[in-house]
Amino acid sequence: MFAVEVTEQIMIAHSFRGEVFGPAQRLHGATFVVRAAFLAEQLDDNGIVVDIGRAHDVLKAALAPLSFQNLDDLPQFKGINTTTEFLTKHVFDQLAEAARAGRLGRNGRELEAIRVTVDESPLARASYEAPLW
Amino acid sequence: MFAVEVTEQIMIAHSFRGEVFGPAQRLHGATFVVRAAFLAEQLDDNGIVVDIGRAHDVLKAALAPLSFQNLDDLPQFKGINTTTEFLTKHVFDQLAEAARAGRLGRNGRELEAIRVTVDESPLARASYEAPLW
Amino acid sequence: MFAVEVTEQIMIAHSFRGEVFGPAQRLHGATFVVRAAFLAEQLDDNGIVVDIGRAHDVLKAALAPLSFQNLDDLPQFKGINTTTEFLTKHVFDQLAEAARAGRLGRNGRELEAIRVTVDESPLARASYEAPLW
Amino acid sequence: MFAVEVTEQIMIAHSFRGEVFGPAQRLHGATFVVRAAFLAEQLDDNGIVVDIGRAHDVLKAALAPLSFQNLDDLPQFKGINTTTEFLTKHVFDQLAEAARAGRLGRNGRELEAIRVTVDESPLARASYEAPLW
Amino acid sequence: MFAVEVTEQIMIAHSFRGEVFGPAQRLHGATFVVRAAFLAEQLDDNGIVVDIGRAHDVLKAALAPLSFQNLDDLPQFKGINTTTEFLTKHVFDQLAEAARAGRLGRNGRELEAIRVTVDESPLARASYEAPLW
Amino acid sequence: MFAVEVTEQIMIAHSFRGEVFGPAQRLHGATFVVRAAFLAEQLDDNGIVVDIGRAHDVLKAALAPLSFQNLDDLPQFKGINTTTEFLTKHVFDQLAEAARAGRLGRNGRELEAIRVTVDESPLARASYEAPLW
Repeated sequence: MFAVEVTEQIMIAHSFRGEVFGPAQRLHGATFVVRAAFLAEQLDDNGIVVDIGRAHDVLKAALAPLSFQNLDDLPQFKGINTTTEFLTKHVFDQLAEAARAGRLGRNGRELEAIRVTVDESPLARASYEAPLW
Repeated sequence: MFAVEVTEQIMIAHSFRGEVFGPAQRLHGATFVVRAAFLAEQLDDNGIVVDIGRAHDVLKAALAPLSFQNLDDLPQFKGINTTTEFLTKHVFDQLAEAARAGRLGRNGRELEAIRVTVDESPLARASYEAPLW
Repeated sequence: MFAVEVTEQIMIAHSFRGEVFGPAQRLHGATFVVRAAFLAEQLDDNGIVVDIGRAHDVLKAALAPLSFQNLDDLPQFKGINTTTEFLTKHVFDQLAEAARAGRLGRNGRELEAIRVTVDESPLARASYEAPLW
Repeated sequence: MFAVEVTEQIMIAHSFRGEVFGPAQRLHGATFVVRAAFLAEQLDDNGIVVDIGRAHDVLKAALAPLSFQNLDDLPQFKGINTTTEFLTKHVFDQLAEAARAGRLGRNGRELEAIRVTVDESPLARASYEAPLW
Repeated sequence: MFAVEVTEQIMIAHSFRGEVFGPAQRLHGATFVVRAAFLAEQLDDNGIVVDIGRAHDVLKAALAPLSFQNLDDLPQFKGINTTTEFLTKHVFDQLAEAARAGRLGRNGRELEAIRVTVDESPLARASYEAPLW
Repeated sequence: MFAVEVTEQIMIAHSFRGEVFGPAQRLHGATFVVRAAFLAEQLDDNGIVVDIGRAHDVLKAALAPLSFQNLDDLPQFKGINTTTEFLTKHVFDQLAEAARAGRLGRNGRELEAIRVTVDESPLARASYEAPLW
């Protein structure tokens, strides 16, 4: 299996509800370093999984509504703990929709899976990987 | 599949028996950067795989008996080459026991697998991943 | 000149006032990776600049009041843009006070300078360095 | 499953044919940081997957014909876009042949798979993983 | 002294003349990770050294003529070994001109120095630092 | 001022004497990532500070007597705490002798200073910098 992975980053504020979160129940924030990996069994005629430039663009587009925002205030996250894990799946869903719609410049059927990894710090990260079909 | 991964580190001394190890047959040492990833199909009601704080605590507890030790002197490693590969499995076993016993704050049955990665230097690492059940 | 440098991290929320900041005028946040370097011309009798354990403790103590906070709400930062640059100097001031008071376990007069580096992301950082005396 | 992963690097020139590559159609170059991971279900009698020294040697040997070369001029790549993805598979093929022939110092039948990861920059990478048998 | 440092990257081809360069006399290439640090004694009224966005823009502008190029073909480098060291000074000169002309959004007289660091690989880098006035 | 910096690594065992070291008084070990920076005001006729290949060789030669050793057993370190700080100066001395003797392939008088940085872990490092003349 081939994979191509690109990296972007965002800076956000948020808070969590639930005693398990301890001091992270307070309003705080994070720099999220977000990597998106696109997986395919075969390369296309150009010798690529997907165009790296397009992969960056699709990832940037998925992250733009979150960038420099307080996630607690965004309607799409109302009542949700925007944990690092949750965000990996949220970004995955945006990327999967783009991939299935061919917005990565390749027939989406030729892509197998997507993996999103989010580093919240050098010492902690989360990831989500799932097949596209 | 979701994963949450946390990082700790230890500094140890050890030596290896076997010609394949060359100069590493002499007493030497390593800084091991140890990452533990916990995998689950579903997030819990808080939106997490496991609490990151607890994950750090369980990893620290697994590493504490090794920290600032000459592994050649520890009774649990008598007659064993404590290679980086061996240690990934050793740490996995500690973490798996904690996970199955619910010490990560989540029903262990809801966790699928654990992956332990140990960097012995920027240029070499080992990992071990296995299902929990 | 010798230096010893230790690393800690915090996650905070804040916002900036001033058109120059563009979208960062909105409430957002950051993971700050903070490195503190202590500089000395000579090592002490133990062969160290300062004890690394104490250096970590002093840096943690300087960062604790900021950790998991909205810096906009802290009285000590009222009316201030808590930029990455500003925070390097803020942390420097805490460390310098500790160093001068001997809380690093060495006569402060034997330390020459302190340098604080704060990474706000893998692509941007700030630092502040100044002599202690 | 156990894995051992070693890292080497090369600096090369090349160009791509195809409008999708935009400015990368021009002759340019890259520092490729190449990681090779060897996977096995069981450790051998020494407690290792493969000897790290041999793993480095086999990876170096796979990369040597590319090092400080313009890949456009190499006969083995005639008419091929030497994309990062393509190169992961090219290196995999060299390593797989070495593994199957026992050149890693272990019966190749005891190795399960190989994964090659190539970072073309801190913000983009490709990988290829496949079973050996 | 305060500093703000931003990072960009380029991919280029080039070759060197001189026996000291060994195999690097052949046409090859590099991914250069370029960091530009701007130094000032005082922060401005916004609490910054220079606007990070502008710093990125000025660095990108300095690198754009080199990006995806064979440096051997560029008229500005005719007869020159475009070593990593040489490029640090080349980028410095572009940034210094921008700083002195106020294109970083601050009176250039309030900036003290610039430092450019270029990583040619994880194992080798060069830097150039000089005062602006 | 120009600088060229190269990186090597070693794995060693050692122990410290003195209560300040706490558990590090026990025999333990470290992976030391060692960077050596050579500083010069002017580039030579080839456009370099020193040949990167020679810089690697000189650094490797300085580290070879320590590699895969228990530093407590080496006669040159008898009665000495081989702290990270101490080792930065020890490596500096070897490099300075090589530089002054012209073993870096350049008249030593044209080099201004050397800086040695040793990372003992991702969270702690030491450095030593001094002029050569």
